[in-house]
Amino acid sequence: MPSWPLNQWYVAAYSEEIGDGLLGRTICGEPLVFYRTGEGDVVALADRCVHRRYPLSRSHLKDDQIICGYHGFTYDKTGVCVAAPAQKRIPRTARVPAWTVREQDSLVWVWIGDQELADTARIPRAPWLDSPDYTVVRGMEPLKARYSLLVDNLMDLSHETYLHGGYIGTPEVAETPITTEVDEDANVVYVSRHMDDAECPPFYSKSTGIEGRITRWQDVEYYAPCLYLLHSRIAPAGILPPEEGPDDQAFHVEVTYGITPSTEHETLDFWMVSRDFALDDEKVTEFLATNNHTVVMQDVVALDLLEEVVESEKENYQELSINIDTGGLAARRILAKLVARGEGKTAEAKTVAAP
Amino acid sequence: MPSWPLNQWYVAAYSEEIGDGLLGRTICGEPLVFYRTGEGDVVALADRCVHRRYPLSRSHLKDDQIICGYHGFTYDKTGVCVAAPAQKRIPRTARVPAWTVREQDSLVWVWIGDQELADTARIPRAPWLDSPDYTVVRGMEPLKARYSLLVDNLMDLSHETYLHGGYIGTPEVAETPITTEVDEDANVVYVSRHMDDAECPPFYSKSTGIEGRITRWQDVEYYAPCLYLLHSRIAPAGILPPEEGPDDQAFHVEVTYGITPSTEHETLDFWMVSRDFALDDEKVTEFLATNNHTVVMQDVVALDLLEEVVESEKENYQELSINIDTGGLAARRILAKLVARGEGKTAEAKTVAAP
Amino acid sequence: MPSWPLNQWYVAAYSEEIGDGLLGRTICGEPLVFYRTGEGDVVALADRCVHRRYPLSRSHLKDDQIICGYHGFTYDKTGVCVAAPAQKRIPRTARVPAWTVREQDSLVWVWIGDQELADTARIPRAPWLDSPDYTVVRGMEPLKARYSLLVDNLMDLSHETYLHGGYIGTPEVAETPITTEVDEDANVVYVSRHMDDAECPPFYSKSTGIEGRITRWQDVEYYAPCLYLLHSRIAPAGILPPEEGPDDQAFHVEVTYGITPSTEHETLDFWMVSRDFALDDEKVTEFLATNNHTVVMQDVVALDLLEEVVESEKENYQELSINIDTGGLAARRILAKLVARGEGKTAEAKTVAAP
Repeated sequence: MPSWPLNQWYVAAYSEEIGDGLLGRTICGEPLVFYRTGEGDVVALADRCVHRRYPLSRSHLKDDQIICGYHGFTYDKTGVCVAAPAQKRIPRTARVPAWTVREQDSLVWVWIGDQELADTARIPRAPWLDSPDYTVVRGMEPLKARYSLLVDNLMDLSHETYLHGGYIGTPEVAETPITTEVDEDANVVYVSRHMDDAECPPFYSKSTGIEGRITRWQDVEYYAPCLYLLHSRIAPAGILPPEEGPDDQAFHVEVTYGITPSTEHETLDFWMVSRDFALDDEKVTEFLATNNHTVVMQDVVALDLLEEVVESEKENYQELSINIDTGGLAARRILAKLVARGEGKTAEAKTVAAP
Repeated sequence: MPSWPLNQWYVAAYSEEIGDGLLGRTICGEPLVFYRTGEGDVVALADRCVHRRYPLSRSHLKDDQIICGYHGFTYDKTGVCVAAPAQKRIPRTARVPAWTVREQDSLVWVWIGDQELADTARIPRAPWLDSPDYTVVRGMEPLKARYSLLVDNLMDLSHETYLHGGYIGTPEVAETPITTEVDEDANVVYVSRHMDDAECPPFYSKSTGIEGRITRWQDVEYYAPCLYLLHSRIAPAGILPPEEGPDDQAFHVEVTYGITPSTEHETLDFWMVSRDFALDDEKVTEFLATNNHTVVMQDVVALDLLEEVVESEKENYQELSINIDTGGLAARRILAKLVARGEGKTAEAKTVAAP
Repeated sequence: MPSWPLNQWYVAAYSEEIGDGLLGRTICGEPLVFYRTGEGDVVALADRCVHRRYPLSRSHLKDDQIICGYHGFTYDKTGVCVAAPAQKRIPRTARVPAWTVREQDSLVWVWIGDQELADTARIPRAPWLDSPDYTVVRGMEPLKARYSLLVDNLMDLSHETYLHGGYIGTPEVAETPITTEVDEDANVVYVSRHMDDAECPPFYSKSTGIEGRITRWQDVEYYAPCLYLLHSRIAPAGILPPEEGPDDQAFHVEVTYGITPSTEHETLDFWMVSRDFALDDEKVTEFLATNNHTVVMQDVVALDLLEEVVESEKENYQELSINIDTGGLAARRILAKLVARGEGKTAEAKTVAAP
């Protein structure tokens, strides 16, 4: 049984990554190939030719069809083979599975599981990623670590103080208690940390221009399994949101993650930073892109190391959890529930469009 | 049980590779060390000192004897230990297995299996490799792929069109149907593809000087498990072999492969290109060596990738085969038969020459 | 069951390696972190935070306490957690195991096994490592090989002739028979090789200035499992130790090894060369450091290669042993006895100092 839930939407790519070429990416253990048709639709097919399983992502795209780079088997956008070498008749079984994809908020999502159930689940939103009111920097780092280590990491931001000191961490992040809420029906975990009088880390001081201490709010929403939202509110110390009207004395940063399992020991770490200030300031854009990339790479190094630790761990190893872990533990519990729901099913149970 | 047949001849090296040094090479899972005696004979011994199993290939050759590089155990060409450190008496069991080797057509063949059966099987011929009527370019590339993937590759040349386009592939190779014959007694598979009016790929246009379209014949003989011959006939379109007399209006290229399993996931890919034209033209020699090496490396990249794919494949994966695969499927069937014949035996069942 | 004995002292580091930083090192499969307190004591703790098992060696040392680099859990020198993020109360189970360490003869030893038994066993001595009468060069090389291969290597110095020819090996080392004694109670193996008239290898001719042939004695003491002593006596040929009084016409080199298993396939190879001559001659010091490092690296290459050989070996492989192996075989027998004694126990059975 895989360690990720089936019958779920996962972030497969940024919309802008899928253009007129072939993109191979393994999502939840499924090797997939993505491309965009002339009409602009995103296609996801199994990345294995039916003939000798050559990766279609190493092949050629022509007229919305993939021509296998090994022997030329040709597939249309539904995965049906429409040409094969040296013969006219194409076997009826010559087709590769097609996967259901959706584009929303500049993200390409793929449904992993029973394809007929895709429309029964809503894809969570992150509208600022595709809004004129925000400027976004983003990237993707492949982790050599299981996805649950990234979930743990993001659900407990007290690590900012120690792993990201000098970038986004200050003493107050680790010192301030959190509140946690869980929506068991929607499979969402909320974690909040409101710092009233905190040091301003370089990430925010250099991007907002604030000098002196700040009010810093971190409000996390984790839509298990894949979408993580951190609503970050920064304002000079003492400035709280008004009772009524817009919170325009504060700076808002929406930190968004797509946490996509690739294999049991690899994860695609999609990270996005959206801000509602200095929208056209290239220097701020450049600073946040560079600074956040550094922060992400600090996590990559730590998580890749932890994966090695976990892999080499003796059996029956017991972790110790404390108050800061309530969000992470809730996330684990929800993930375990979702994984168990998918038990006995396989991602293979997918339909193919009729030719 | 190994995936290769036992009691078979395998290409271990080119004759010219074995000179006055020690050559270590793993053939069908057997670590072997090769050298040439002063009298010119090729010797193959197990590449493990009997004492602490140090590789003899990392040792010293002196007077036709190998002196182990770790503690100095010394072996003669029959594998018998003739000297050991700090004592005169040599234990009678101090000997390493010697393997039966033959040189033929500039290739060194080794018999993997029961050494007493070596003379019961004929080594297939490739006489052009050692003939004044041909000029040969050759090389060896180690694959990180099982040998059966190379057999698949070579038995279905329709891949030339897609993997080797711009080098040896043209549309007609993939478009033209093949005929397949199998000699079940001799374990030979024949595949023929005769193209009457085909584009001339750079490999042949630049080496032969032909301008315009060609008649191109590909006649494959695969002597399972190790020797693969592609008789390639190239002539201007319309020129067929005469009813009688020499086919001297055509150009002939003998493409020869030694397909030697090294380990279960590694293969030695010996490739040789012999031509009967422009024998002394260094530019043609250089061109064919470079061009064919490029083609081989395209296969190496593809097959190493396929090995990863096959290794990571879910169980019960089903390939789809079509007409072009009749040769490859016949080869697989013969290999399976030969492997089954060796079942219950091991390559270990080898004799050692008496001292 | 591990392949090394439990309830034993192992060399973990040189004293000088442990200063005001954190040193992570895996000893007998146990990831440990070492540091030195302000008072000068060496501390060894398990290198895994109790919270999310982040390596403490990647953390911060402050006021004799380790602050975890991930979330800031803070440990004192007994392994007790004294601070955790965002809460005052520290769980009573928040402690990491502390390991018993001793410094002796400039080496840091750690007791692997039941910590309450540490004082029941004596640490063997190598007093020249920390004596004004000797000058020492030293280093540590990590092997990608099991520790038993290093034990084999050092117990049979006939390999000096073949693996280290031109450095410390000459023909006489391999030619001269050895005598072996075993102290079964103390678990010590003695191997002696006295060469009366031998070539002087560069290692000794360049460091001592002796020209011409030498008397060369090699007297090995191996204190299983970890400490190996080679008492090397070099003098011009014919000069034997006097009946009475100091042996001051000879040069003495104490070659010392700490043979510390790290994992089942990795070993820490601590090597030390102590001499009682030319104590202040920097050129001799530099020469011996460089020359011996070269010799050690020749062993590293050979042993890493042997590890691959042993790992890929077919089952039931039989080695052949001869007279030169009596010391090595005795060492293996003692190690097997010590390993068996530890059976059913685990290194986990360790105590932690009460807070």
